[in-house]
Amino acid sequence: MLENNQIKDENSTKVDGRRIGERLKKLATFGIDSDGGINRSFGSAEDIKSREWLKKTWTEAYHTRVQVDPVANLWAGIDGVEKLKPIVMGSHHDAVANGGKYDGSVGVLLATEVMQTLKDADYPMRHPMKIVSFSAEEPNPYNVSTLGSRSITGVLTKKDLENVTHSVTKEKITDTIKRLGGEVDLLSGNVLRPHDISAFLECHIEQGRNLCDSGRSLAVVTSITGLYREKIRVLGEANHAGTTVMKYRHDAMLAGAELSLALEKIIAHENRHDVVGTVGHFDVFPDSANIISGEVELIAEIRTPDKSALHEIVSQLSDQIHSIEKARDVHILREVILDQDSVPMDGTVQQTLREVIRSMHEPFLNLPSMAGHDSVHMVPIAKTGMLFVPSIEGKSHCPEEKTDLTDIVKAGNVLLQTVLVLDKELDR
Amino acid sequence: MLENNQIKDENSTKVDGRRIGERLKKLATFGIDSDGGINRSFGSAEDIKSREWLKKTWTEAYHTRVQVDPVANLWAGIDGVEKLKPIVMGSHHDAVANGGKYDGSVGVLLATEVMQTLKDADYPMRHPMKIVSFSAEEPNPYNVSTLGSRSITGVLTKKDLENVTHSVTKEKITDTIKRLGGEVDLLSGNVLRPHDISAFLECHIEQGRNLCDSGRSLAVVTSITGLYREKIRVLGEANHAGTTVMKYRHDAMLAGAELSLALEKIIAHENRHDVVGTVGHFDVFPDSANIISGEVELIAEIRTPDKSALHEIVSQLSDQIHSIEKARDVHILREVILDQDSVPMDGTVQQTLREVIRSMHEPFLNLPSMAGHDSVHMVPIAKTGMLFVPSIEGKSHCPEEKTDLTDIVKAGNVLLQTVLVLDKELDR
Repeated sequence: MLENNQIKDENSTKVDGRRIGERLKKLATFGIDSDGGINRSFGSAEDIKSREWLKKTWTEAYHTRVQVDPVANLWAGIDGVEKLKPIVMGSHHDAVANGGKYDGSVGVLLATEVMQTLKDADYPMRHPMKIVSFSAEEPNPYNVSTLGSRSITGVLTKKDLENVTHSVTKEKITDTIKRLGGEVDLLSGNVLRPHDISAFLECHIEQGRNLCDSGRSLAVVTSITGLYREKIRVLGEANHAGTTVMKYRHDAMLAGAELSLALEKIIAHENRHDVVGTVGHFDVFPDSANIISGEVELIAEIRTPDKSALHEIVSQLSDQIHSIEKARDVHILREVILDQDSVPMDGTVQQTLREVIRSMHEPFLNLPSMAGHDSVHMVPIAKTGMLFVPSIEGKSHCPEEKTDLTDIVKAGNVLLQTVLVLDKELDR
Repeated sequence: MLENNQIKDENSTKVDGRRIGERLKKLATFGIDSDGGINRSFGSAEDIKSREWLKKTWTEAYHTRVQVDPVANLWAGIDGVEKLKPIVMGSHHDAVANGGKYDGSVGVLLATEVMQTLKDADYPMRHPMKIVSFSAEEPNPYNVSTLGSRSITGVLTKKDLENVTHSVTKEKITDTIKRLGGEVDLLSGNVLRPHDISAFLECHIEQGRNLCDSGRSLAVVTSITGLYREKIRVLGEANHAGTTVMKYRHDAMLAGAELSLALEKIIAHENRHDVVGTVGHFDVFPDSANIISGEVELIAEIRTPDKSALHEIVSQLSDQIHSIEKARDVHILREVILDQDSVPMDGTVQQTLREVIRSMHEPFLNLPSMAGHDSVHMVPIAKTGMLFVPSIEGKSHCPEEKTDLTDIVKAGNVLLQTVLVLDKELDR
């Protein structure tokens, strides 16, 4: 698929590693606290400062006006020679509370750099090129993540957003969006439709430690993991913690504890890097030192791109749950609250990424993404692909989050060459 | 010890079972809800109604003024022939939310009945006789239980109460007490001192199922259980529930789950009716479905009157905690927040109760109380004893709480005869 004679001419063009490093440093100044954590949640003063800086940077780099769409996603573009749908790159610039300097920022600044390199080299691109920084990808006080990508692709509508408010300030999210230059009233007329974009590329930190452990710099993402959640209620019997002897207890907390440990054991037995299971939400009632728990609500989450593995795990978990119910004479009520299939990345884009990386003689991995990303929502709109760079020790969403600049620069050059190949090969 | 010739004369005197039953029914009307649960927490409208009814009942029964002490405990008394410290009987009339009709009420109404029977029979008692219904014995929205007995015995002072407020209405407890006829400013001058009371007797439902399972009607309480609590913090590592593979997790919730199950196993292995252990408080942080728990706070409670058993259990728990820390690479911080020795009931009073019961040819048990009671706080003041009646199926603090009236009447007659014996034998 790679047309070697075409690539060769442009192969000497490289992104500017120093510039990428400086911009990463600068973006990290917006919201950094004394412990090195980044606090830049959607709609915050730090979000606004980073937006202003991005707009200024893009305006200077491309001599073009930055566009703010109806949900305040930021866009900038350069023209193509032919009348084709654009190739788009991007990610998000917001951060979780006490987050890191790389998550989201890497993808936005590599997009910035690749488009700048292309513009400066003055290649006659067939496709228009665009970059985007999405609004509110991360969990935030409005309890709406991937807001920007979901809204602009029609998954969230004006109606969905109308009653969303900030959990502390109670500001309506529609007002927040307006403060950031968006206008939710205009959303329905501006939703992206399938094939409105030729290809979408996102570079992101892995957030896990597969790349770090392998010693490699790059991974081509094969799919975004499937995500399965059950809300589970354990109904036992609240009773006096002094007068109720052990054999007459129906302790919901202990039943929930057994269930959680059973899930861990089942998942650990799979021993796969692409199967994880977690009980992160676990609430005990009445939660009092001197009362045996009458009820527990927990959420059991399983992530894997392998649907048959999921079925096998859920089946084993069901067996364990029946045993626990019987042994403790408790009732365990289960409700599937999320059963999201894995989303494969586009085959052509994956293949192009691999061929470009191979042409650079760079070892790489093929990995599923175990976290969600804006790219999931771009899949129905565009041929979508993702590239991962390592998270040192797998740390993410924390001040210790780190990726070596050399790896980021490698990813920038892979994206640059991939855009050039896709520009030549797509929409013929 | 029993002087048979003296008892014989009075042995034919019995409490009025019908009157006890009617009063239990009447008291249960204050705060009953549609499911049969009693809601009569300290300071509530239902508390006030039940106080008014108790005052009216006592005034009519004894032709005496009911006294309200500085923390709104209710007292009534009849005179004795000699100038001695009184014999006191009582319990509490408040109830937990959605509680039962017997807890506390039985003890107050048997005290009421026994003193009425004595007054009506016109025995020449050597000691003055008093009955008391204590304020706020149960957990309540002020988060202060056994308020009345602890305050009037000097354990809680005005200073301790000054900043206590209702968790919802924010009313100061000192104002609540004032509404109920008390005056905390007068507390320090009215505190009970050792030997201010000759003997204190409390009848209470067992709340456990030892009596019910044994088929017997009465138990003499040997001691109030020791109560040991540790606040335990498990420090793991909060991390992304998708990207963190199982082997790199330090899941605080799962470590806390293992710890709780380990405690259960250790206690169950003891297989004793007088050793229980509970984790009733269990809080997970950040408690989010997609984040591995970074921290758990839990309270491990152990109750037993046997100090050496407690030491053995804590030692075994420590071993298990070290294993969990090592296996999961988490830190487990422990703080002993309560280490209350068991409180033995007075030997003379216990012995008198046993002899009276034997003289009635009634089979009985000797049991430790696995719950706390106002009696604990009367121990330094008076020769204190408790009598248990069965809780059917061990149910307590719930609408299903029940004790057969025949058992309650038996207890009333035991109390009556015990008071007569103690009146003759004490303070010679």
